[in-house]
Amino acid sequence: MKVKVLTNILEANDRIAADNRKVFNDAGVYVINLMSGPGAGKTSLLERTIKELSSKLKIGVIEGDIAGTDDAQRIESLGAPVVQINTGGACHLDANMITEVMYDLPLKDLDLLIIENVGNLVCPAEFKVGENMKVMLLSIAEGHDKPLKYPLMFQESSALVLNKIDLLPYTNADVGKIKKDSLSLNPQLKIFEVSCKTGEGIRGWTDWLQTLVK
Amino acid sequence: MKVKVLTNILEANDRIAADNRKVFNDAGVYVINLMSGPGAGKTSLLERTIKELSSKLKIGVIEGDIAGTDDAQRIESLGAPVVQINTGGACHLDANMITEVMYDLPLKDLDLLIIENVGNLVCPAEFKVGENMKVMLLSIAEGHDKPLKYPLMFQESSALVLNKIDLLPYTNADVGKIKKDSLSLNPQLKIFEVSCKTGEGIRGWTDWLQTLVK
Repeated sequence: MKVKVLTNILEANDRIAADNRKVFNDAGVYVINLMSGPGAGKTSLLERTIKELSSKLKIGVIEGDIAGTDDAQRIESLGAPVVQINTGGACHLDANMITEVMYDLPLKDLDLLIIENVGNLVCPAEFKVGENMKVMLLSIAEGHDKPLKYPLMFQESSALVLNKIDLLPYTNADVGKIKKDSLSLNPQLKIFEVSCKTGEGIRGWTDWLQTLVK
Repeated sequence: MKVKVLTNILEANDRIAADNRKVFNDAGVYVINLMSGPGAGKTSLLERTIKELSSKLKIGVIEGDIAGTDDAQRIESLGAPVVQINTGGACHLDANMITEVMYDLPLKDLDLLIIENVGNLVCPAEFKVGENMKVMLLSIAEGHDKPLKYPLMFQESSALVLNKIDLLPYTNADVGKIKKDSLSLNPQLKIFEVSCKTGEGIRGWTDWLQTLVK
């Protein structure tokens, strides 16, 4: 019974996501669904990405949070077009939420739209929102056991950004194991090691992004 | 429509949770529902707690994970009775899952049962499982903006264990803000600052636990 409800919800969601994607394609905007657990650094990666690419790409953002507008304010202060969704309790964004806000952005002026999902390493991976690609973050402070414990997000993502590598000397995290287990779940996964705090490794990520968008 | 489905699921869940709780009460075991985002250190806190209290309390554990048995193996190696639940995708434990496994534990021999929920800062807070008390962890590496962005878990929990304080010198996290915002959401919240890595602060937590269980 529970499975039946979920199947129906997912089917309806996928139809709406396909409609969103057509609108994005027609407007010529490439869309990334950015996912991670809470506090892995999604907004910090967005800030670094917007600063690094501001002269090359026009980037817009949809911020998804259960409550609050902190993240949208951080993006707005960089001059990027941004809309905040408050899910009011829901633990992930769905396609319908994106439909409701996407026309508030200047889609035709954008090259790249990044949708920052709710901080949750589980549910967001199940719901398409109209993206071209899913990207996930993992903070190395979360530990090296995460790929095998949360396999779906690693399987669904095209890229994994391993953040907070500046904390590596102070944790027990085994980055080699994270990479090995991630690639065993998804051999095509692109992996970037970065520190949004120090800026280390950001350039490799933004260079790759540019190759996708143009 | 979505709200209606969720309401029915929650009502059914709460009835089953009340049944579980009666079984636990009759067996004389105090039950904690332990929740956090991924990688905040729930299993490490369990390890520290079991070691610290092994001569005083008989502790059993139910491990909830989407996949894998790593956590249950870590607990079993300490000699504590443990059962692993694999949710197969579901992002939280519900009462029915607990009903299915709880009789595999020697309930009458236990003083304290800790149910380690799936790593998720959102959904587990909505589902009772039969606990006497909810406790949440937050790693200071997750950042100080979490209480206002994920309010429900802070409101539902009786205690907040702030873990990884050994990383404080290497992050921008503002512990004062975490405490202030957490208490604004839940003035009764007990807050413990600990490092499961170094052992700092664990004693305050286990002393408090003992006063509840006795």
